[in-house]
Amino acid sequence: MQVEPESDAMAGEHSVSEDPSSQSAMQFGEYKDSLVATISQHLDLKHHCTSSAAYRIADLGCFVGPHTLDAMRTITEAVKDKYKAGGQSFGIPEFFVYFNDRVTNDFNALFAKFPEDRQYFAAGVPGSFHGRLFPKASLDFVYCSKAVHWLSKVPEEELTDPNSAAYNPDRISYINAPTAVCDAYLGQFTKEMESLLSARAQELVHGGLMVLVIPGRANGTQYPSVSQVFMPLETILLDLAKEGMVSKNKVDLFNVPMYFPSPEELKNIIIQKTVGFEIVELSTFTRSSLPVFPTEVLRGAYGGLLTKHFGTEVAEQALDRYEKEIPTLRLRNPAEGNGVFIYVTIKFKKS
Amino acid sequence: MQVEPESDAMAGEHSVSEDPSSQSAMQFGEYKDSLVATISQHLDLKHHCTSSAAYRIADLGCFVGPHTLDAMRTITEAVKDKYKAGGQSFGIPEFFVYFNDRVTNDFNALFAKFPEDRQYFAAGVPGSFHGRLFPKASLDFVYCSKAVHWLSKVPEEELTDPNSAAYNPDRISYINAPTAVCDAYLGQFTKEMESLLSARAQELVHGGLMVLVIPGRANGTQYPSVSQVFMPLETILLDLAKEGMVSKNKVDLFNVPMYFPSPEELKNIIIQKTVGFEIVELSTFTRSSLPVFPTEVLRGAYGGLLTKHFGTEVAEQALDRYEKEIPTLRLRNPAEGNGVFIYVTIKFKKS
Repeated sequence: MQVEPESDAMAGEHSVSEDPSSQSAMQFGEYKDSLVATISQHLDLKHHCTSSAAYRIADLGCFVGPHTLDAMRTITEAVKDKYKAGGQSFGIPEFFVYFNDRVTNDFNALFAKFPEDRQYFAAGVPGSFHGRLFPKASLDFVYCSKAVHWLSKVPEEELTDPNSAAYNPDRISYINAPTAVCDAYLGQFTKEMESLLSARAQELVHGGLMVLVIPGRANGTQYPSVSQVFMPLETILLDLAKEGMVSKNKVDLFNVPMYFPSPEELKNIIIQKTVGFEIVELSTFTRSSLPVFPTEVLRGAYGGLLTKHFGTEVAEQALDRYEKEIPTLRLRNPAEGNGVFIYVTIKFKKS
Repeated sequence: MQVEPESDAMAGEHSVSEDPSSQSAMQFGEYKDSLVATISQHLDLKHHCTSSAAYRIADLGCFVGPHTLDAMRTITEAVKDKYKAGGQSFGIPEFFVYFNDRVTNDFNALFAKFPEDRQYFAAGVPGSFHGRLFPKASLDFVYCSKAVHWLSKVPEEELTDPNSAAYNPDRISYINAPTAVCDAYLGQFTKEMESLLSARAQELVHGGLMVLVIPGRANGTQYPSVSQVFMPLETILLDLAKEGMVSKNKVDLFNVPMYFPSPEELKNIIIQKTVGFEIVELSTFTRSSLPVFPTEVLRGAYGGLLTKHFGTEVAEQALDRYEKEIPTLRLRNPAEGNGVFIYVTIKFKKS
């Protein structure tokens, strides 16, 4: 029933949370309080514990911890507090937490980290969150942090066709690209968000909540913080082409499968492209002051992508140069400071 | 909540289905028809699909496939057929299958084998099935094949204390041992079955079914088929002690953590030691004609146990000798032919 995308640029290469644009730059602690407040304010107990004894939570794109374990502890404790405060006659429920990530995620490593004192039952659910993963109306709460900006694929046919308006040579992303390129990326992101939300609309109970944390960019700007990685990497790859280490065509065909939406874009998708979801809160966090990305983090996040497209030798050369250039990379472009994290809570109402 | 036994002789060493006494000797095909018949005859639709849309199945001690995948396909198809035959107005449910095994099982390998055309949602649930794994009343069907004969520990204090009536020197199992030793093993098996069933009594819905397939022995006999492995291995270890390769004391302290119950013993446990379970069918299969166990299978199943207790060198010597003696092992003891598989279906009725 769950079929992984056949030709998935990401599968097996790396996992969402290794992304330096998210993992190292914004730790869970920075929005833990928001999560507690969301549950306190927006969780409506009357929608839960009527059809089932357990409160069921899914973390989509969980990776191997420790972020997911911190988040699940926070959510279960906040829901318990809400029940206690509500004085519900049916008592505090048991919890069942589903840890989801692609089938190539290292679930063995995650399971080995489960804390002995965890206060929930736990399962690993392998598969793409762009499709169905759970039975109908079987989730009370969905959490998805720093995962949806990874696209399951880039819109290849548009970006790599010289006759297309969205042909994207000389660049590895939509940053500094013509509008048509940005639109192609946004189109792919929109399609994937629609898949994700339409699957969850089947799986969430009426009144169920979904919290998404998404690395994005400020309204009206083009630069997510990750520009600081993409732009020098782009220059390095073009230099390698000029030097004949790799064909120019090969570089032109390389596009990173990531999109960093603005709050406005995200609102439009949720409100206009899906049915049944209501935005109950949306806030942005300016990301913590951005350190230069160390090469080993870059290697973990993009090494797989580079190797898959260019082969080991060229990928290693690009990473080596990046390492040498690190001292010159910081604040190369002042506009790069517009990166934000978008924290959005949506509620599902069955029609 | 789920805590693995701290000092578990098995953990990380091997998994239940590598046991040559089960995996290679009795394949799923041999009782697939029984499973289909059980569902057709004993599944009572009125107990399901009232509180939840999905039909939830757990395979306890699933290992890494392919047995578990065959079994889950068979069960889901048989349940669907039952629904179709019943003409239920609420239609055929979705299925959620939970694959359980110890946290040291290779879930990554299992997940990678999930068939693309599977007709159920799937999750991996790591942890010991002797404790709680699922929320209350959240399972419709439990399947547990060739797993419960592995004890989570041997009753050490009794078997290794020279002052105990159940002191068990010169033997590595309860086979050919005095009654007190057999009783100690049976006591441990009983305790673990009680834990398993009392956890499931919490987790099964009223009317939920549980099918257990257990390698055992015929009523009134002492020899499971695996005697054919244990007895020569015992002789080899005692020979190594005589030759000074290992201390006699070390051999005396080694006891294999497995118990092969008779149908009568199993009935007594289910009927007298648990609350809420009713035996709806119990049959035995005489095991297929038993080939000599190849050393590589023996190595997979018992190598870990031997290495943990004796160290690599002695374990390798024991396995090498076993390999050399294989030609003489077959039908060493005619009484060894009494091994059976017990197939038992129990139904849970909430009091």
